[in-house]
Amino acid sequence: MIGVNKRIKAYGEVMMRLEAPDYLKLEQARTLKVLYSGTGVNVLSALSRFGHQTSLLTKLPDNSVGDAAIAYIRSLGISTSDIVRGGAYIGMYFLEKGFHVRSTNVTYSNRKESSFCTSVPEEYDLEATLQDTSMVHFCGIMLSISEQMRYNALYAAEKAKQLGSFVVFDFNYRPKLWEKSDVQAKACYEKMLGHVDVCFMTEKDARYILEMGDRELTDRKQQIEAVIPLVSNRYHIPIIAGTMREKDPDGKHSIQGYMYHDGSFHYSTVYEYKTLERVGTGDAFASGIMHGLISEHAPAEMVEFAIASCVLAHTTYGDSPICTEAEIWSLVNNTDVEMER
Amino acid sequence: MIGVNKRIKAYGEVMMRLEAPDYLKLEQARTLKVLYSGTGVNVLSALSRFGHQTSLLTKLPDNSVGDAAIAYIRSLGISTSDIVRGGAYIGMYFLEKGFHVRSTNVTYSNRKESSFCTSVPEEYDLEATLQDTSMVHFCGIMLSISEQMRYNALYAAEKAKQLGSFVVFDFNYRPKLWEKSDVQAKACYEKMLGHVDVCFMTEKDARYILEMGDRELTDRKQQIEAVIPLVSNRYHIPIIAGTMREKDPDGKHSIQGYMYHDGSFHYSTVYEYKTLERVGTGDAFASGIMHGLISEHAPAEMVEFAIASCVLAHTTYGDSPICTEAEIWSLVNNTDVEMER
Amino acid sequence: MIGVNKRIKAYGEVMMRLEAPDYLKLEQARTLKVLYSGTGVNVLSALSRFGHQTSLLTKLPDNSVGDAAIAYIRSLGISTSDIVRGGAYIGMYFLEKGFHVRSTNVTYSNRKESSFCTSVPEEYDLEATLQDTSMVHFCGIMLSISEQMRYNALYAAEKAKQLGSFVVFDFNYRPKLWEKSDVQAKACYEKMLGHVDVCFMTEKDARYILEMGDRELTDRKQQIEAVIPLVSNRYHIPIIAGTMREKDPDGKHSIQGYMYHDGSFHYSTVYEYKTLERVGTGDAFASGIMHGLISEHAPAEMVEFAIASCVLAHTTYGDSPICTEAEIWSLVNNTDVEMER
Amino acid sequence: MIGVNKRIKAYGEVMMRLEAPDYLKLEQARTLKVLYSGTGVNVLSALSRFGHQTSLLTKLPDNSVGDAAIAYIRSLGISTSDIVRGGAYIGMYFLEKGFHVRSTNVTYSNRKESSFCTSVPEEYDLEATLQDTSMVHFCGIMLSISEQMRYNALYAAEKAKQLGSFVVFDFNYRPKLWEKSDVQAKACYEKMLGHVDVCFMTEKDARYILEMGDRELTDRKQQIEAVIPLVSNRYHIPIIAGTMREKDPDGKHSIQGYMYHDGSFHYSTVYEYKTLERVGTGDAFASGIMHGLISEHAPAEMVEFAIASCVLAHTTYGDSPICTEAEIWSLVNNTDVEMER
Amino acid sequence: MIGVNKRIKAYGEVMMRLEAPDYLKLEQARTLKVLYSGTGVNVLSALSRFGHQTSLLTKLPDNSVGDAAIAYIRSLGISTSDIVRGGAYIGMYFLEKGFHVRSTNVTYSNRKESSFCTSVPEEYDLEATLQDTSMVHFCGIMLSISEQMRYNALYAAEKAKQLGSFVVFDFNYRPKLWEKSDVQAKACYEKMLGHVDVCFMTEKDARYILEMGDRELTDRKQQIEAVIPLVSNRYHIPIIAGTMREKDPDGKHSIQGYMYHDGSFHYSTVYEYKTLERVGTGDAFASGIMHGLISEHAPAEMVEFAIASCVLAHTTYGDSPICTEAEIWSLVNNTDVEMER
Amino acid sequence: MIGVNKRIKAYGEVMMRLEAPDYLKLEQARTLKVLYSGTGVNVLSALSRFGHQTSLLTKLPDNSVGDAAIAYIRSLGISTSDIVRGGAYIGMYFLEKGFHVRSTNVTYSNRKESSFCTSVPEEYDLEATLQDTSMVHFCGIMLSISEQMRYNALYAAEKAKQLGSFVVFDFNYRPKLWEKSDVQAKACYEKMLGHVDVCFMTEKDARYILEMGDRELTDRKQQIEAVIPLVSNRYHIPIIAGTMREKDPDGKHSIQGYMYHDGSFHYSTVYEYKTLERVGTGDAFASGIMHGLISEHAPAEMVEFAIASCVLAHTTYGDSPICTEAEIWSLVNNTDVEMER
Repeated sequence: MIGVNKRIKAYGEVMMRLEAPDYLKLEQARTLKVLYSGTGVNVLSALSRFGHQTSLLTKLPDNSVGDAAIAYIRSLGISTSDIVRGGAYIGMYFLEKGFHVRSTNVTYSNRKESSFCTSVPEEYDLEATLQDTSMVHFCGIMLSISEQMRYNALYAAEKAKQLGSFVVFDFNYRPKLWEKSDVQAKACYEKMLGHVDVCFMTEKDARYILEMGDRELTDRKQQIEAVIPLVSNRYHIPIIAGTMREKDPDGKHSIQGYMYHDGSFHYSTVYEYKTLERVGTGDAFASGIMHGLISEHAPAEMVEFAIASCVLAHTTYGDSPICTEAEIWSLVNNTDVEMER
Repeated sequence: MIGVNKRIKAYGEVMMRLEAPDYLKLEQARTLKVLYSGTGVNVLSALSRFGHQTSLLTKLPDNSVGDAAIAYIRSLGISTSDIVRGGAYIGMYFLEKGFHVRSTNVTYSNRKESSFCTSVPEEYDLEATLQDTSMVHFCGIMLSISEQMRYNALYAAEKAKQLGSFVVFDFNYRPKLWEKSDVQAKACYEKMLGHVDVCFMTEKDARYILEMGDRELTDRKQQIEAVIPLVSNRYHIPIIAGTMREKDPDGKHSIQGYMYHDGSFHYSTVYEYKTLERVGTGDAFASGIMHGLISEHAPAEMVEFAIASCVLAHTTYGDSPICTEAEIWSLVNNTDVEMER
Repeated sequence: MIGVNKRIKAYGEVMMRLEAPDYLKLEQARTLKVLYSGTGVNVLSALSRFGHQTSLLTKLPDNSVGDAAIAYIRSLGISTSDIVRGGAYIGMYFLEKGFHVRSTNVTYSNRKESSFCTSVPEEYDLEATLQDTSMVHFCGIMLSISEQMRYNALYAAEKAKQLGSFVVFDFNYRPKLWEKSDVQAKACYEKMLGHVDVCFMTEKDARYILEMGDRELTDRKQQIEAVIPLVSNRYHIPIIAGTMREKDPDGKHSIQGYMYHDGSFHYSTVYEYKTLERVGTGDAFASGIMHGLISEHAPAEMVEFAIASCVLAHTTYGDSPICTEAEIWSLVNNTDVEMER
Repeated sequence: MIGVNKRIKAYGEVMMRLEAPDYLKLEQARTLKVLYSGTGVNVLSALSRFGHQTSLLTKLPDNSVGDAAIAYIRSLGISTSDIVRGGAYIGMYFLEKGFHVRSTNVTYSNRKESSFCTSVPEEYDLEATLQDTSMVHFCGIMLSISEQMRYNALYAAEKAKQLGSFVVFDFNYRPKLWEKSDVQAKACYEKMLGHVDVCFMTEKDARYILEMGDRELTDRKQQIEAVIPLVSNRYHIPIIAGTMREKDPDGKHSIQGYMYHDGSFHYSTVYEYKTLERVGTGDAFASGIMHGLISEHAPAEMVEFAIASCVLAHTTYGDSPICTEAEIWSLVNNTDVEMER
Repeated sequence: MIGVNKRIKAYGEVMMRLEAPDYLKLEQARTLKVLYSGTGVNVLSALSRFGHQTSLLTKLPDNSVGDAAIAYIRSLGISTSDIVRGGAYIGMYFLEKGFHVRSTNVTYSNRKESSFCTSVPEEYDLEATLQDTSMVHFCGIMLSISEQMRYNALYAAEKAKQLGSFVVFDFNYRPKLWEKSDVQAKACYEKMLGHVDVCFMTEKDARYILEMGDRELTDRKQQIEAVIPLVSNRYHIPIIAGTMREKDPDGKHSIQGYMYHDGSFHYSTVYEYKTLERVGTGDAFASGIMHGLISEHAPAEMVEFAIASCVLAHTTYGDSPICTEAEIWSLVNNTDVEMER
Repeated sequence: MIGVNKRIKAYGEVMMRLEAPDYLKLEQARTLKVLYSGTGVNVLSALSRFGHQTSLLTKLPDNSVGDAAIAYIRSLGISTSDIVRGGAYIGMYFLEKGFHVRSTNVTYSNRKESSFCTSVPEEYDLEATLQDTSMVHFCGIMLSISEQMRYNALYAAEKAKQLGSFVVFDFNYRPKLWEKSDVQAKACYEKMLGHVDVCFMTEKDARYILEMGDRELTDRKQQIEAVIPLVSNRYHIPIIAGTMREKDPDGKHSIQGYMYHDGSFHYSTVYEYKTLERVGTGDAFASGIMHGLISEHAPAEMVEFAIASCVLAHTTYGDSPICTEAEIWSLVNNTDVEMER
């Protein structure tokens, strides 16, 4: 069903991430670690390790900062030949990594004037760019930025659909960003869902954005099993998947993946996880499912691969997952090795 | 009772801390991390984050090392305008951070000839400096250094009292430092306690220094409840507070704060803690109580705020606490967030 | 004439500087050095080392990035108590240091939406803030940002004048910034000059902004001697100063300072200079003159001190000059020492 | 029995270790940490801290890489005066440290052409070098490299024996290295065991190399108690020791040491351990036993010291153990201290 | 004549470079800077910045070291889709950068067993790979490695020629490498020259390898003008170019480019240069000429562009040139700017 | 005359050097580079590279700081088996490297209470230690520290002389250190000279300490030729050597060595030098002469070798010279190579 030997693309913003090293607060740091990421970058980085041809659709300034972002994205194995150059700025965020009870702190700099967020669909020549594309990935954060970004996302999703690509959408709901907006998130998300083939979400997204779900239920799995089939039905989305994180009273974190696939639920193993890196781990799950779909794995296998990809993404540095397919299968198959030598 | 809108000051030594990075031993390190701290610096650093005007009373050499210490202390938000310049040396200590069963190792360089430890009270113009001061903080380590230091501490505490400041004293008993001394710690501490309004100590300090307490009792809380009221009564100190650390058989560390306040005991929540930084966490507790006293919080609230300040200080780099009041209340209120974005 | 024992202030933006280390291009860097600067910060940093009380008037976001900027500025010895907190962003620039024939490359991120550039004069309570202020420094870059910034600068300069402060203005003309503007630089600068007591500029500023000067003259000194008295006369500015840089055919860089003071020209020694740091060296000259004016040095001495301050600023890291008064006089007096030990 | 006041030597290869810092993968690293190690280096490093004179028998290239290895080995306290210089290359390995479920990854570069692996026994003048030597340590990895290396190892072990040294042998079986070989490991190991006085191994080595042991037994201790006396008997080795690692379902790692000494088994305390460094921890155990033998400690004491040495080696950076004898006894005696100051 | 819109390729080895930072010797370094380069990588890196599609023909091990090399090469803008994976090792070299009179020191590790140096032509599917290729670059070092490497180079050059690509060859003569060889360099080079369209060399290469040239002439230009036309004639190579470096008695280094183009000599401006990086600067010259040939610039322009590319390559970090076409033209046009802002 | 195959020793203090990296001032540094040096360490480091057995006589604290110093000294190739452990502190100095017109700034911490400076001769068992010693090196700084240090130096020099060692003495006059002393430098130096066989000094030392020399002479060489024979004669010192540094009006630094050897003067080539490291370069000269004496080189050769050693020491990091004998002869023989590969 999904085109094999075609490229997987993602349409989304590239952010410069500036991180205080060694668990410092920004005020203590005289150097910052820098990398370039974004939901699209992250998903494609993982898919490149799984053997797929990938390419990013975005716009970056035509200066040394844009050059730096492109060099970084290329190093992840993603083609940058579809990237449009122009505008003046790149979106940025500052990261103070938390430690134990101290939370991780993310501070955004101005995104609204970034090259990507001020771009219009005409700049991307989507008609040509989306030829020979098996899947296109979109992220819900884009809907929160501005009227222009909403327009761009919907325009591109519709175009992708027309040209025969699978449309993948990740809710990625950030309440803070929508609070400041006059626009209702629900209407935007609903328009987007009209184009979507695969969607990543949880019962919380259903409740807070789509206003669906039964608040009486206290068990997360029961909530998911109650609401996800309704979402699938209402918006004609055959595949919905996501992760459930828990923290036990002892302070241990665990995670489990679920996938609703053509009417049935599939759950992964529950993993305890430890965190070297928190950002981008959801994208590691999403890319695991996308890989399974293209490779036509069985649903149970897909969700096992995806959650192992997600758990491993907590153990590598940077937003963008970099574990290979072999490393992920090795975790799935539980070949427990302290040291490979 | 305590002057609002007045400055909080601390009278104490500034140490240069030289730390082997990345859990190295000194012999493995070709770079050392450097910062400037001290009990007084630490307490004032925290209080500055809580919105208070703070200023340090100390003496530093008039050379590039002294300049460096002052730049660092200023960056913490502490006024350096009361600092006297002169003498030739700064006190220093080397830090090898432990890992799991390997203990942290502190090695002092020569303090006795430091600018501060060779200074005399006349240099500080305390009459002027302690005007408009709500509280002055003293640390027990000063009493162990030399006859001069003992004289300076007692002179300044008495002067502070006369001028209407609250006198805060932290026992900070270091048996190693007193072992080498011909002088008895008890007599020195008792003279100091004669001037004190708030004091930080545990039942161990009572036993080893003041020779009070019932050795038959095996439970720490029982010991504290037995001896602290006696201390309060004998030395006329209305407020005594401190922390109790435990390590369970599983290797987990926990901590609880107590405060004896006008005849009643108040205990905080027990927290498990993990340690990015061990030094200065007691000072984070002390500054939390000091903040509560000035802000006239209820005693139960004070001790909760103080212990949360202490637990968070284990999660930030450096001796000097740098969490904001908001971050601390957020932990008290247990709003559990993995990532703020 | 200028208030002694009063504070020197600067009204201007704080920028975060992000620098690729070790002469790397941004695309090669995985860490960036970070510091916080700005013309005002730089001038006050130097003046703090010369023994003056200084304070910065600006606005910074009330988040961890703003906290970091404030900690850095405090570490330079500048009071931050006048700083207004609010807005969302800080201005930023990226720095790729050049090497030999490769030029240094500066890339600005979006400044227009920064906390400072979106602020209005009412937020600063200038009436109160400029009491007890001997001098206020303004930078010409502010005039190029936006209508609001021009309004703020002129409003504050007028207010400062009314309240008896000396108004210091540095042309700091950046043709690139004005090119993009519909507004004519000349008119803006002329309004500003109406309030100014001391001004920093060269014959190029006179020609390109004020449209004054004789293009026939090929010698820089002749040009300066022709045009600066006219500027002084037309705008009633008694003191004008600046620097002349030259590069000889052998690739050596040299610099000389001039000052026009109550009708006479004074020239400094010509220095060859080598560059560890290029940014902020003009501010080191300006602060040297300001120090001379407050200290009522002879004009010849002022310009010698200022140029030595400028030459030394090329040899220390960071935009903000950090040499002490003693180090600068030592260069003036040419006590040539390879090593102080 | 073992010569006191004599030197302890090890005959083995020095490897350059190149490590991606901060848990990065190699592809993310622009700097690598470098150190020089090897089983022999590690054992001697520990023994130097326990007060013994040690010296390494190896060959290193006569270039700046060889100089660097020698400077490093000297800094560990090992004499380098027996090292032969010549050949062209040093063996190397790349290390990507694992995190939680992600395994540590070791990649070897070409060892077969290294200076050591292409050397012949005549180069070492063993007759002279092994005079005045109490013990010589050999590592089983050497047997897997090449016919030449097997010859060298057996030749030197025989010579050592003749000259009255104790021969210590660590199985260090690496199945990957032997898989590629046409030679059977068993025969090689058996020849070596003919010269050995002390040997480090577990029941796995007995099973996979010597083809001894009862596969029916599921308990590790039972297996050890069944097979080790047989090994001791068949090859006339009076002392055999080793460690048993376990991972409990909760993810905690524990370790216990055993020693078979003149017909009796001795077991150490079981320790939970956390890992800053995994490589070289087995060598820390071996050197602990070797120290006990020379010092003529009681067997129960030896194995306690050795396992504590091993556990501490997990907490210090680098392959080569660097804890002092005092630090190890302090762990044995369980004097639990969070911070030494 | 040369195919436009086709890819430029290079056939050659990728080396891992390990550099002691900050002008340290290896024995002083505990971290090494790592990058991946090679003559082919360097030439293609530059050509990518000049707007060309480039791709590297090489073989790299299928492990984490090979992955790291590929990520780095991709970040330079070079396609890695033609790279063959397999074998076990990567070639490496150690770099100690010199300072003033201390020379730079390069130490090679074993290359002969590297994946590339043990590969055979069949692995590369050259028939397919060299389709749609405008130019292929070869480096003379390859001829010195082994019989296999000579065979591979000649085979690929012949194939490239047959398929209509321009063959570019850089002499890159390293006497040390040939000294150890039984094979005569001359015969190998002559075979290679039979396929070559453009060649980079100097009069020294002609003398030491081809045994041509008049030793009586003392002036370098005279020597070049005497011998290069003979080389061009004898081997039917229409375009020959190279650089001449001089060091004047004052210690200043200068460089000039020459190009012999269809029977005429063209010389560039003489530049003084300063060195941040020495390695790869010759490749920057070669790629400048290659760019000029494809772009059909006038010969005088080509050599000016190429020498400016070379001079700038001395000012950027790393073997692989990273200056943009615009930056190079800006130096050619001598727009002297200290700082771009 | 001088014992071959004997050890060369130095009796002197080890200092911890703490350096602000990258030309920062201390107030800008959050990490410091650390190393361990001293005149004796430096001289022996060089002599180890020249193939001599060396050993340091000093006292270091028996803690982790002392261990670190010893590991560093061993890595330089110096034996540490003569080092006495005890006392509490190590001497330290802070280094801010200068840049162009900004001077290097050295700040000492307290040396007077260091382990070495509080030691007494009895601790060193000199009778045994100085057996089998060909030369012992002393540094004039030791004479300035305290009465105890003067006593120790003279005692050891006398003992060395008795036991048949060559006594080498470097004036190393630091006026600042003597200014603070009540003692006259002259008397101390004269006592020392009574034991000396080789001495390093210039005409300035003769003038300021020994009060010899003709102030009328303006040329340095004339001064040296006037005074050095008188010194040689008065104190019976057959060999005196030293360096003369000059700075030309263009800012270039040059240096020349001289040696007065059995009544004749020998001068080296004049070298221009550039400085990566200034500290310890005089010690590189001294060790060059010492090497020449032991190796019985001709005087002209000795002084050429010594000055080349000195010039190269300016180009390597750290106080202690680390160039090999081959590298130094290569500079003497002026084989000019930009890069060794």
